[in-house]
Amino acid sequence: MLYVIGLGLGDEKDITLRGLEAIKKCCKVYMEAYTSLLSFGLTPDGLSTLEKIYGKPIIVADREMVEEKADTMLLEAQVSDVAFLVVGDPFGATTHSDLVVRAKKLGVEVKVVHNASVMNAIGVCGLQLYRYGETVSIPFFTDTWRPDSFYEKIQRNKTLGLHTLCLLDIRVKEPSLESLCRGKKVYEPARFMTINDAIEQLLEVAQKQSESVYNEDTICVGMARIGSEDQVIVSGSMKQLLTIDFGPPLHCLVIAGDTHPVEDEMLEFYKIN
Amino acid sequence: MLYVIGLGLGDEKDITLRGLEAIKKCCKVYMEAYTSLLSFGLTPDGLSTLEKIYGKPIIVADREMVEEKADTMLLEAQVSDVAFLVVGDPFGATTHSDLVVRAKKLGVEVKVVHNASVMNAIGVCGLQLYRYGETVSIPFFTDTWRPDSFYEKIQRNKTLGLHTLCLLDIRVKEPSLESLCRGKKVYEPARFMTINDAIEQLLEVAQKQSESVYNEDTICVGMARIGSEDQVIVSGSMKQLLTIDFGPPLHCLVIAGDTHPVEDEMLEFYKIN
Repeated sequence: MLYVIGLGLGDEKDITLRGLEAIKKCCKVYMEAYTSLLSFGLTPDGLSTLEKIYGKPIIVADREMVEEKADTMLLEAQVSDVAFLVVGDPFGATTHSDLVVRAKKLGVEVKVVHNASVMNAIGVCGLQLYRYGETVSIPFFTDTWRPDSFYEKIQRNKTLGLHTLCLLDIRVKEPSLESLCRGKKVYEPARFMTINDAIEQLLEVAQKQSESVYNEDTICVGMARIGSEDQVIVSGSMKQLLTIDFGPPLHCLVIAGDTHPVEDEMLEFYKIN
Repeated sequence: MLYVIGLGLGDEKDITLRGLEAIKKCCKVYMEAYTSLLSFGLTPDGLSTLEKIYGKPIIVADREMVEEKADTMLLEAQVSDVAFLVVGDPFGATTHSDLVVRAKKLGVEVKVVHNASVMNAIGVCGLQLYRYGETVSIPFFTDTWRPDSFYEKIQRNKTLGLHTLCLLDIRVKEPSLESLCRGKKVYEPARFMTINDAIEQLLEVAQKQSESVYNEDTICVGMARIGSEDQVIVSGSMKQLLTIDFGPPLHCLVIAGDTHPVEDEMLEFYKIN
């Protein structure tokens, strides 16, 4: 059996009793490192808090391992109980459908333990979840690569009065282009897009439009470390949010659509001073 | 302090360690009864499992109490720690923004403990969350009231290739029209829309369109009791899903938009036999 267990968004205390019970049954416990080391404020050798609370050693599975060596994990899961821990929900922003498909093809039974993910926890800002349109991803611009396909989606959402969740780029363990050319992988330092980076890129793209659906006066909500004790939620115009230091990652940004009175009241509490 | 604590979707084991810790600190523990009695398979006097695991007596707050008597709870929260338990996530499908706004206006500090909600747990069917458009609600049709405003939203989503989550009507503790006229409230029996009811209504509305964006051959995913041990997930055409008995509530339905290969592979696992 493969248990795919969501850990939630904050720290080691956000696991559910069901998740913890499953971990205790498992012979091996893997944890995806893609965002987890960061979200849980861990250094690669600082897993001990988690291991203490979960009562098991944890094998950190980096992105390459999950993508390339998943079969080993799945073979183990054919004969014993194996846990794969995922920050947020197993099918939240970072989807693990791939792994589940491979498991099912190998005849491995899969059980999912759900938890909060950014996709529902953003509800805390007061903009109602059923009034969001399609989610967009904002990638880091480079000198030569400045894709703006997110604009069209924001435009559609805005035109319909819907809110837009912007997921911001995360680059962890990306091999450097130079090292790839040399045939030996050297990794770039980890980078996490800030709300400020995202707004700058959004405004750059807006300026290229003849009549942009948003501009520096558009109301947004910036949310950092959502679900953690030190989460920061600030509502204000893009221009205003640019002046805020939201602190460490992870960040996300919501571009408000048309708002209802209860939504306005909630945003008021998070308004920039 | 008012703790608004998400209980997740399955049963008493889906609370997080953080949520449980908060409950243990609180003098009073309220629980919204709107969907909870049902989701947790409880009768009104069958709270003991929850009370045992949470180590506290629980006051069931029905809809009227939450709406009309919230102030009592908030006054208590001004001077002590009070927990308000909510099925799913506090800001999931059923939003509790109202309560939070009232609390904040009274100067009561609010802490939210997130959990899974239907809004993210539907990811388990394999259709990726960031490819959903606006969520729709399907209300029970009556002889005289057959609102079809959901059609337009589904149309927009479908046209953009996006998936649509349909939340299905729940009627708990609704006073009967007759009793309201007589001035003494008598409640209708609880009703929960099934996937089958929803599809029938959807097809009725489709037939009135000159060229409907969906019909009985449109691929959907029916999901019942999502997150529970006995959850049922079936993919198939509307016509096919009409033949399935999904069992007890709660049900929800996803109308698939354009699908990607990994999405198709996942749907394949849930395909009707």
